[in-house]
Amino acid sequence: MTTEIDSSIAARLHTAQHILIVSHVRPDGDAIGSLLGLGLALQAAGKTVQMVLNDGLPASFRHLPGSEQVKKEPKPGFDLFITVDCADFRRTGRLFQSFRQPDINIDHHITNERFGVLNLVEPQAVATCAILTDHLPGWGLQISREVAANLATGIVTDTLGFRTSNTTPAALRQAAFLMETGIDLPELYNRALVRRSYAAAKYWGAGLSSLTTLDGIVYGTLRIADRKNAGYGGNDDADLINVISSIEDHQVGMVFVEQPDSVKISWRALQPEIDVAQVARSFGGGGHQAAAGADIPGKLEEIQPRVLAVTREMLKL
Amino acid sequence: MTTEIDSSIAARLHTAQHILIVSHVRPDGDAIGSLLGLGLALQAAGKTVQMVLNDGLPASFRHLPGSEQVKKEPKPGFDLFITVDCADFRRTGRLFQSFRQPDINIDHHITNERFGVLNLVEPQAVATCAILTDHLPGWGLQISREVAANLATGIVTDTLGFRTSNTTPAALRQAAFLMETGIDLPELYNRALVRRSYAAAKYWGAGLSSLTTLDGIVYGTLRIADRKNAGYGGNDDADLINVISSIEDHQVGMVFVEQPDSVKISWRALQPEIDVAQVARSFGGGGHQAAAGADIPGKLEEIQPRVLAVTREMLKL
Repeated sequence: MTTEIDSSIAARLHTAQHILIVSHVRPDGDAIGSLLGLGLALQAAGKTVQMVLNDGLPASFRHLPGSEQVKKEPKPGFDLFITVDCADFRRTGRLFQSFRQPDINIDHHITNERFGVLNLVEPQAVATCAILTDHLPGWGLQISREVAANLATGIVTDTLGFRTSNTTPAALRQAAFLMETGIDLPELYNRALVRRSYAAAKYWGAGLSSLTTLDGIVYGTLRIADRKNAGYGGNDDADLINVISSIEDHQVGMVFVEQPDSVKISWRALQPEIDVAQVARSFGGGGHQAAAGADIPGKLEEIQPRVLAVTREMLKL
Repeated sequence: MTTEIDSSIAARLHTAQHILIVSHVRPDGDAIGSLLGLGLALQAAGKTVQMVLNDGLPASFRHLPGSEQVKKEPKPGFDLFITVDCADFRRTGRLFQSFRQPDINIDHHITNERFGVLNLVEPQAVATCAILTDHLPGWGLQISREVAANLATGIVTDTLGFRTSNTTPAALRQAAFLMETGIDLPELYNRALVRRSYAAAKYWGAGLSSLTTLDGIVYGTLRIADRKNAGYGGNDDADLINVISSIEDHQVGMVFVEQPDSVKISWRALQPEIDVAQVARSFGGGGHQAAAGADIPGKLEEIQPRVLAVTREMLKL
């Protein structure tokens, strides 16, 4: 279990006194869970730890132990610098661009640029939190209930509750092991993935009522007026794209979200052979084969038919 | 691991040649998964097996291995009679009411009436499929990939994807073990719990657009016209109650589903201290503390305000 990289990391952790840990901008459950999980485990071992997110901590993760400690910027005077869940150093955010090379880079992305002095990169792990679940004991750090709550959150969110295609038996066993510290896994799962506001549910109502199907595309439209009627505070789709992605018998799922001067569009491939990233790129956007997006300046009425036509043409639907 | 009851069951399974297995009416993923999982394992051991569901097999589970073998009624001439996932014998359906006592009763419901000659009842198990996952090897039966696909479906559906409060580390480890037979767990999970029709999604749109909040109650209304507009074939709520149950900051979630001569109502407790079963019973319905329902004759316009008033009063909202 304990390899050369483990020994090197353990040695650095044990000699350090003031440790800075950083994760990526627009932090998700795995970024936050790995930041807090590692941070709390190091604090329990007597270290002074700064946990920093360039964008701060989203309100939806404030139930996590240690979340009140997260700062938006670091104070000087740390002797060890760790990044978690960052595929490249730029993902830490603007604040850190002038910082020195991290001492330790812990991540599960296959695209990780190995930008640290020590790099623990395990692409077969479902989450950075899964890597920490496996390695913390080998570094002499304890997985307390508070640490486990954070690590479980990252595993649950990065697998969408154990249902993404990369879910492994190892991930299920890691979650079982974390549960045995006494955490309420279903509660953490519901808080991270399931619970939503009344306004968001009502906003979904508008989006799902607008559903249209066209040559293998199923799409919903969310207007500024829908957000206002529902009392929904964000300018996003409230994850409606995930509901649309679950609709059977279609090739592509899409959401159009009207903005004051543009339209934000999400594409999802609903069949394995579909590549939506190329369509998004043709509109100046980006993403992966299965999930992509773009923000196109202009009016919904003009943009929507044009984007639908290009999507059909490029994907030969 | 192998106990006295295991030895007794193994002995009966090994001497039998023609085995009838039955599960409950309105079969869910655990009823179907345990019926097919046990049935296929016994067939692989050389037994002749009849797998029978009084209501037949729902279309949404036809992807499961062995599902094409499920019949709506048994042929005579079996020498062993097993029920799976039935808390009482009446749950097998009208067809079986005149049948002799089952030889083996395998179930995880705490209310199981132990109506079999041999009763393997484990209330701590998340699903009857979880019991079978643990016990099949001890009975000398193999968990092939086909058996595992069925057992995993029951574990996933009865835990709503590992997120119900009764989810255990054991259930996560059982799922990991089943995955190692080579099944595509995420695919089975998505088919059983996530995928929905275009019509159902559009019907949800109507229900979520109608959302109303009143003194801690959040409720949606689904009319006959909504089903027609969406092209939704069923007369149920298409599981909209599960979406409403995820809304935060409320005490009770409800759905009113208009029928030609009645209104079907579902209640869900959104906080642990709320008991909705008593409200449902006062309208001639039933259920559990956290989830209950009733079917009330009459018109929506008359019934809805009355039921809301009684719900507020009985729950002191």
